[in-house]
Amino acid sequence: MSHGKQFTLFTHLGGGPNGWKVAMVLVELGLEYEPKYLDFSKDEHKASEHLQYNPNGRIPTLIDHANDEFAIWESNAIITYLVDNYDPKRKISAADPRENWQQLQWLIFQASGQGPYFGQAYWFMKYHHEIIPSAIDRYRRETIRVLTVLESVLSKQEWLVGGKCSVADISFVPWNVVALDIMRQWNVVDFKVIMADYPDFDLERDYPAVHRWHNALLARQPVAEILAMRRSMVTQAAARVGA
Amino acid sequence: MSHGKQFTLFTHLGGGPNGWKVAMVLVELGLEYEPKYLDFSKDEHKASEHLQYNPNGRIPTLIDHANDEFAIWESNAIITYLVDNYDPKRKISAADPRENWQQLQWLIFQASGQGPYFGQAYWFMKYHHEIIPSAIDRYRRETIRVLTVLESVLSKQEWLVGGKCSVADISFVPWNVVALDIMRQWNVVDFKVIMADYPDFDLERDYPAVHRWHNALLARQPVAEILAMRRSMVTQAAARVGA
Repeated sequence: MSHGKQFTLFTHLGGGPNGWKVAMVLVELGLEYEPKYLDFSKDEHKASEHLQYNPNGRIPTLIDHANDEFAIWESNAIITYLVDNYDPKRKISAADPRENWQQLQWLIFQASGQGPYFGQAYWFMKYHHEIIPSAIDRYRRETIRVLTVLESVLSKQEWLVGGKCSVADISFVPWNVVALDIMRQWNVVDFKVIMADYPDFDLERDYPAVHRWHNALLARQPVAEILAMRRSMVTQAAARVGA
Repeated sequence: MSHGKQFTLFTHLGGGPNGWKVAMVLVELGLEYEPKYLDFSKDEHKASEHLQYNPNGRIPTLIDHANDEFAIWESNAIITYLVDNYDPKRKISAADPRENWQQLQWLIFQASGQGPYFGQAYWFMKYHHEIIPSAIDRYRRETIRVLTVLESVLSKQEWLVGGKCSVADISFVPWNVVALDIMRQWNVVDFKVIMADYPDFDLERDYPAVHRWHNALLARQPVAEILAMRRSMVTQAAARVGA
């Protein structure tokens, strides 16, 4: 590709969480990338230009032009690839072998626990063609379950792995932003906040360690920079559909 | 622990898929393990004996007694740990670095794509307190989507990664068994087969590469051995609840 940057990142023209996660890690590591924002309303993620690299037809997909055009998908596989190859000083990744396995364990928990359940809550709150209270309730309860697991760990230690902020922590940010209240602060009418108005839910009171950890992550400059881009993209997408 | 085997595997007293996946890999690698079958009806997975190793309170959890009691959870993190440490001849894992990333990519797709969607289909078919046809339909369609992605790849190559059977392939077996027809062949009344009786669904006709691949996996001796144990466990569990 002719943009001259090391990476191309296929990602979502909108707020979809998983591409922003990879963008955060690229910025954390000071790596240059060209984003290709795919318009899902035009099925660009299912077009051959993308499918040739990613048969799953979902974002994100990364191409490393400095590694013989190596293409990889699944956001947390991409993130692991990035830190193992481009974080030699272990700025945001675990150095110790055992901690490295724990980092992978948390990344897979994010991918299989947080992402799918938060994602299903969002689906039934926003996209499903009928309102099903028991399905919405199921996934909001699962959201609470994930927060409870995180609280049980983060009440005893500052970060998930290795005594410092790592990709294990960063990977949780994009969905936590959707679950907790920041989306509401963005004032984008069209977006849902999973836990907004949930009876007796108070993050700061009941999940103080998660609250502290989430805010510490939001205060990181690369995370804040990418979330500002996401906010701008979400606002534009809402304007396009007239929300 | 006093059982003298290298590993302890906390897993499910019943058919739950993720523990069997790890058991398959342990047998493939000839590693000795002691299973601890947790009775979910007694909340043994939420008891402190388990939670001390795994704050997520789900199975599987592995303890490696030969590595200073190292504990790790999330089945595909466990599997990656096992092959990276105990598969020096790369019998069931990729040796080439790029293929190793692709192996992780497929493992994360299994964990975040196949597992959660097949799992939600199963939930709404068997456990949800009300019948919601549109939710069941959603997750059966997602099951088909995952099969379609696999077909698009396996119609061009025999295995997912590196030209041989690897943990990437094996990881899909336990949920595919639930989705496709083998559970029905087991004749366990209480169990659901996700795609059974789905209108116009014919694996062999419409997903011939997945059909070939799935049967090749079932024919592997370690896979067959563990599935026979699972069948026995499922049958016993059904008998316990009087199904």
